[in-house]
Amino acid sequence: MKILVINAGSSTIKYQLFDAKTEEVLVKGVAERIGIDGRHVQKLNGKTNKVDILMPTHVEAIKVVLGSLVEDKVVKSLSEIKAVGHRIVHGGEKFTESVVITDEVEKEIEALTPLAPLHQPAHILGIRACKKQMPKAVQVAVFDTAFHSTMKDFAYRYAIPKEAYKKWGIRKYGFHGSSHRYVASRLASIMGKEGKFIVCHIGNGASVSAIDGGKCVDTSMGYTPLEGLVMGTRSGDIDASVVERLVKETGMNVSEVITYLNKKSGLLGVSGVSEDMRDVEEIAYSKQRNTKANDARLALNMSTYRVKKYIGSYIAALGGVDAIAFTAGVGENGCEYRESVLSGLEALGICLDKDRNLKDFARGKEVMISTDDSRVKVYVIPTNEELVIMQDTKKLVKI
Amino acid sequence: MKILVINAGSSTIKYQLFDAKTEEVLVKGVAERIGIDGRHVQKLNGKTNKVDILMPTHVEAIKVVLGSLVEDKVVKSLSEIKAVGHRIVHGGEKFTESVVITDEVEKEIEALTPLAPLHQPAHILGIRACKKQMPKAVQVAVFDTAFHSTMKDFAYRYAIPKEAYKKWGIRKYGFHGSSHRYVASRLASIMGKEGKFIVCHIGNGASVSAIDGGKCVDTSMGYTPLEGLVMGTRSGDIDASVVERLVKETGMNVSEVITYLNKKSGLLGVSGVSEDMRDVEEIAYSKQRNTKANDARLALNMSTYRVKKYIGSYIAALGGVDAIAFTAGVGENGCEYRESVLSGLEALGICLDKDRNLKDFARGKEVMISTDDSRVKVYVIPTNEELVIMQDTKKLVKI
Repeated sequence: MKILVINAGSSTIKYQLFDAKTEEVLVKGVAERIGIDGRHVQKLNGKTNKVDILMPTHVEAIKVVLGSLVEDKVVKSLSEIKAVGHRIVHGGEKFTESVVITDEVEKEIEALTPLAPLHQPAHILGIRACKKQMPKAVQVAVFDTAFHSTMKDFAYRYAIPKEAYKKWGIRKYGFHGSSHRYVASRLASIMGKEGKFIVCHIGNGASVSAIDGGKCVDTSMGYTPLEGLVMGTRSGDIDASVVERLVKETGMNVSEVITYLNKKSGLLGVSGVSEDMRDVEEIAYSKQRNTKANDARLALNMSTYRVKKYIGSYIAALGGVDAIAFTAGVGENGCEYRESVLSGLEALGICLDKDRNLKDFARGKEVMISTDDSRVKVYVIPTNEELVIMQDTKKLVKI
Repeated sequence: MKILVINAGSSTIKYQLFDAKTEEVLVKGVAERIGIDGRHVQKLNGKTNKVDILMPTHVEAIKVVLGSLVEDKVVKSLSEIKAVGHRIVHGGEKFTESVVITDEVEKEIEALTPLAPLHQPAHILGIRACKKQMPKAVQVAVFDTAFHSTMKDFAYRYAIPKEAYKKWGIRKYGFHGSSHRYVASRLASIMGKEGKFIVCHIGNGASVSAIDGGKCVDTSMGYTPLEGLVMGTRSGDIDASVVERLVKETGMNVSEVITYLNKKSGLLGVSGVSEDMRDVEEIAYSKQRNTKANDARLALNMSTYRVKKYIGSYIAALGGVDAIAFTAGVGENGCEYRESVLSGLEALGICLDKDRNLKDFARGKEVMISTDDSRVKVYVIPTNEELVIMQDTKKLVKI
């Protein structure tokens, strides 16, 4: 019995096929350039295969992916795939946990388009393509926002007129929920009990969550993923008045300015070089004494300082903290990054063990990086959103 | 020898006349409805006098004010007023401390209009009116932003393309600087030494500052006073994408949306009742169980939760904290408000003494409200921005 996990974007479908029992990944890949030309990249048995093949729509893309599974003998027949778990960015206020996708649910996911105008339509294309190609498989929706639905009103509401919340759903939703949930549950398992946790998911997109007793209390992303930390290309927190000034000065309209804050800002905007933390770090840590290196250092400092401030903010929100975890690309691999975030927090009971932090550990391993006597434990915990989606799907189809 | 302190708005001029030696306030008042009709309200010897009198421009308003000083025998002759200290909202990156207003300085203040489009032109009117009516007095500018000029680049820059900073000065400036400076210096004086301080200036406008060794490290207001805490009518922190959604849904243009976030939001927007904390608290603390009371409670909780998070954030930024001070209207008088902000922060070494906090103390008194064994000391310290302006002015004219 197999479960397919799908993450459908506007021109890509990422997938992983799991053995539902062993929870092992049998194959993973991505159908990309959908609607442009089409390419299928697949990782199987340690090898990567790339095939250029026409994919005019998501339906053909799914057909290509499924065809390859049979062809490569990953499955004997598509009927082995009992269920498909779809990553859905936005669940609005309606979806506070994963659900089987009925016609009604599909309509409701589509109706959330105003809250995620780029993502929801792509997710709907992914769902419809899977329904068409695997009519007997159970389709399940797992929402990025769901884990954050436990936030209290004073944490998720913005201080704007109530009508803006009531009419248009303008509030903090938070994202990366499956990742925060996964890491928080790993923390509870490692620590042997639930507690007050702060999870720092630092990838190209990045967010911090405060979790108490397994429930999300607050998170740094907001109405959209723009709010919060400094990210690869997103500004994170900014005075909203800046939007007005940029409209006035640049001649861009408001939507173009928001795109500028989402796509041209963050590490890329400040460093002027790259949205990739590794590139920025390479220049920042070089001995160069020029504007380029200074800008890279500034981008890096802004990014770590912002995480530091969120950690402090969530310690106050939680009334203390038992453990802090770093996850996702930069969180799992950025030793210097983590050191910079945690430096100077000893007064808060957070003591990094620099040797443990710098030790070359294998990706995929859970490691404690605080000192033995640090009151607050600090961990690196590799995230696994696909596993969460698979597990939720498994639970709902009762395999 | 007297010093006049002026705070000129677009239709008002607030003033206080000080004896430069004793630092005593001799008279204070406000010329209001300038350009509409005109009214002069003056407080002298415990009495308030109101006079309706035509004030077509700031020049006539200053003339009325000065005339009353002679008439009421507060001064024998205007020549006793050796200097005028002007509160100026924005000093940009140019003005990092108070200065004597030369023609050049006046031009530079005016050139900062894009950064404070409502305030700077009014300040210029105030300066010109005073120069015209008191040509021999030294005019001094004291900037709201100056105290924050010590912030490091990683604290004041936004993660947007560098050009937006270079070309248009888009960065965090911070405001209420004279108040934060005054309270921080009082804290140092009370504690007997400089240290790591957090100052919560909570009035209708509100901001928090992190101060280390007398220097500002970070502050919650940003490019404009819109950013940061939940205020009387300002939203404070919000996902910038909300601006785009509001433009789309309401038909307002971007400037109107920013005005909506500045004038219709905050306590007023969430409670639907009032921008005045006292009104909101009265309803919130009532026994009513209706929507109105719930909305007031939510507004209050959002406001105190935001301050709590900033305190945590600045403890992380400072790497610890020695003392926290509350100042301005709500900060000085809101006992329940302070209790709500500090509740649950015991794990951070902050222990409020509820009796001291609730004790009915006279406005104008500096009081410690933490327990004797609280690691972090908490104080109420009445602010006095006018005194700061007067003292800076006195220093610069070397009276």
